[in-house]
Amino acid sequence: MKKVGVAILGLGVVGGGTYRILTEHREFYKTTQAVDVNVECVLEPNRDRLQELGVPDAIVAHNIAEVACNPDVNIVVECIGGVEAARDYVLDVLYGGKTVVTSNKELIAKYYHELERAAKRHNAGLYFEASCVGGVPIIRTLLDGVHSNKILSMMGIINGTTNYILTKMTEEGTSYEAALAEAQRLGYAEADPDADVEGFDAAYKLSVLSSLAFHTKIPYTKVLREGITGVTAEDIARGNALGYRLKLLAIAKQSDEGIEVRVHPAFVKKEHPLASVSGCNNAVFLSGDSVGDLMLYGKGAGDLPTGSAIVSDILYASTRTEPRYSTFKNNANPEKDVKFLTDFASAYYMRLTVNDKTGVLSKIAAIFGKNNISILELLQTPESDKATLVIVTHETHEQAIKNAVAKLNGSEIAKVETVLRVVS
Amino acid sequence: MKKVGVAILGLGVVGGGTYRILTEHREFYKTTQAVDVNVECVLEPNRDRLQELGVPDAIVAHNIAEVACNPDVNIVVECIGGVEAARDYVLDVLYGGKTVVTSNKELIAKYYHELERAAKRHNAGLYFEASCVGGVPIIRTLLDGVHSNKILSMMGIINGTTNYILTKMTEEGTSYEAALAEAQRLGYAEADPDADVEGFDAAYKLSVLSSLAFHTKIPYTKVLREGITGVTAEDIARGNALGYRLKLLAIAKQSDEGIEVRVHPAFVKKEHPLASVSGCNNAVFLSGDSVGDLMLYGKGAGDLPTGSAIVSDILYASTRTEPRYSTFKNNANPEKDVKFLTDFASAYYMRLTVNDKTGVLSKIAAIFGKNNISILELLQTPESDKATLVIVTHETHEQAIKNAVAKLNGSEIAKVETVLRVVS
Repeated sequence: MKKVGVAILGLGVVGGGTYRILTEHREFYKTTQAVDVNVECVLEPNRDRLQELGVPDAIVAHNIAEVACNPDVNIVVECIGGVEAARDYVLDVLYGGKTVVTSNKELIAKYYHELERAAKRHNAGLYFEASCVGGVPIIRTLLDGVHSNKILSMMGIINGTTNYILTKMTEEGTSYEAALAEAQRLGYAEADPDADVEGFDAAYKLSVLSSLAFHTKIPYTKVLREGITGVTAEDIARGNALGYRLKLLAIAKQSDEGIEVRVHPAFVKKEHPLASVSGCNNAVFLSGDSVGDLMLYGKGAGDLPTGSAIVSDILYASTRTEPRYSTFKNNANPEKDVKFLTDFASAYYMRLTVNDKTGVLSKIAAIFGKNNISILELLQTPESDKATLVIVTHETHEQAIKNAVAKLNGSEIAKVETVLRVVS
Repeated sequence: MKKVGVAILGLGVVGGGTYRILTEHREFYKTTQAVDVNVECVLEPNRDRLQELGVPDAIVAHNIAEVACNPDVNIVVECIGGVEAARDYVLDVLYGGKTVVTSNKELIAKYYHELERAAKRHNAGLYFEASCVGGVPIIRTLLDGVHSNKILSMMGIINGTTNYILTKMTEEGTSYEAALAEAQRLGYAEADPDADVEGFDAAYKLSVLSSLAFHTKIPYTKVLREGITGVTAEDIARGNALGYRLKLLAIAKQSDEGIEVRVHPAFVKKEHPLASVSGCNNAVFLSGDSVGDLMLYGKGAGDLPTGSAIVSDILYASTRTEPRYSTFKNNANPEKDVKFLTDFASAYYMRLTVNDKTGVLSKIAAIFGKNNISILELLQTPESDKATLVIVTHETHEQAIKNAVAKLNGSEIAKVETVLRVVS
């Protein structure tokens, strides 16, 4: 039986889950995959953590060279997180001809091409299913399941932390600050939550997924990125009343005009399959030219779900003699030819405070009309001497909305409190 | 660039979709997959169909030998349907060392092992993603996406025809007969609808999927199979009123006690992700020991969705030098050791007609109590001298329900009109 030696760099949440899955399933993989996968060594300085996981002293390495030079190690799992150190470590082991499996979305989004070159030069594999959407095999699906399709669009909830916060705000009417504090208490959000709540995490993942889907390089810097820190319980409640749920969506679309990639909060109709993806769950909704609509739904984070993706990559690599690159290899659209769209089409939700005087509504309507924005729904509620006006538009263009907002805020009649996109 | 020649046997719905995808995407696959896939020949006697698809005369073969002996053909797509002729054709081309891609679930459910032996002997590949759940890459997911997991259970809506019929009955209150006639008019159901409505199609698919999920052979004859021909609009409406939707479910579970595999109509809570899978859509809900819950949702049939699965298999086979078997190869649980359970746990919906007399309800309750069945919900509605009683039980055992039904029907007090399983 084929023997495969694995090293794990970093035994935090994901590294620890990977260790547990590999050690508990060793016999299972012998019978079902005809491969004996053994954890040959780990690199983890925290002795308490090593003890907690029951890691034998004999397999604890002291530095990366010990791992890179270990002839019994074929595959190295990178779970140390961060970027610069991880990059150095990964390059070290690729130079040694060892296959790398990583869950590090920032590393892949920033340095994939450099890592792939190193991997190919040394005939090593490079796998990163676990970097996007936890246990959901979205990368395998893009590469080996729907690669017969031109992917037209992709829309997903790909960050569990923000989805937890927005779900809590929706279901319990809590403020953003209270929901964030609760997420931190439960370990769903970091002490410094910016990577999640400002949309960086989702932007890295969207860069990776859209690059694979569209067969080109989509730098994360090209992703329009807006986080959820400005979201209010009031807007969530007003949207709910109109039949919408607020989600942090990652959206990628490809058309003859170009490519649009964006991460921002958006309302979706409550009947949409993504509306019911709640808490820490994730989902990706794809549209292909042959397969039509396809949705994958599952756990987007956690030790065992993300470990499941890592170990699936390990088994995939272990049972093949040729290294496969989860790859952006054949640039159907070389980056230089890609046109990134910034003025995309969307519907919009707007909340305005208006002076409750005769004729104000007709003036507001006129501003919308002049910008060719047509109104789908309108709800006015009185509040002492002012009124709150909630407007949902038909599909229009980002630039038209920006023009209308500038015009409204420049007038005496209304103040635009919130603008949120609406996805149909 | 690597060149791959494809032959298509049968240009019906799926074969035609495959032809269209391959011819329209040839340049796309050159740039994105670095492979030139060309349709070298087709076997289709219907000249009108050949003309409709614009197939050049030069590539029309006249018999299977012409295909099997064509040195430019590397991969043969079997879309002729049926079983015996398809088996002969597939064996012919496998003997010629050509890889086979098929959408034929009945063929795979009945003859997989014979075909796999032939494939291996001649170093040919054997792929059948398109045989289950149309364009949804469920087989790729089981084999290459979640193979790190012990799969605990699988529950799916895997037949589009019956889902269309049940959706129509649910949404419009139509009878089974009227919904079937409409499905036939729209081409969603065959003139002889038995394969779908009696659950054979779903049972073949469940045999294939559960064999892959549980790493053993699950013969389709072991699948408990009940169709939807006995389903009434009345029960659907009464279930709806209690918050349930009726679906034809395919269920497979594995535990220390054994394996249960069954296809039957069942009520699911309307909040369950499967409840909102309507019309011709399909979905599979998996539970793995590491990944947790995972759902795949998409189009379960149709020319292009199913063609998408076939062409994805073609590309998968084309870009690898070793043939991969979508395989039951390593029998962790050799068939002889598999214990198939028939007395499984479930909740139940029952509709009874009762004589509306004092004390009847307590007698009925006593019969349930004696069989250790506890009642979750009960709804009695009067109808002239009789009454209709709808009961939903807590989880109990199939055998307990059978005993209670026999006792009730043997009594003077009630007649059991319907028993349906309820999945939580």
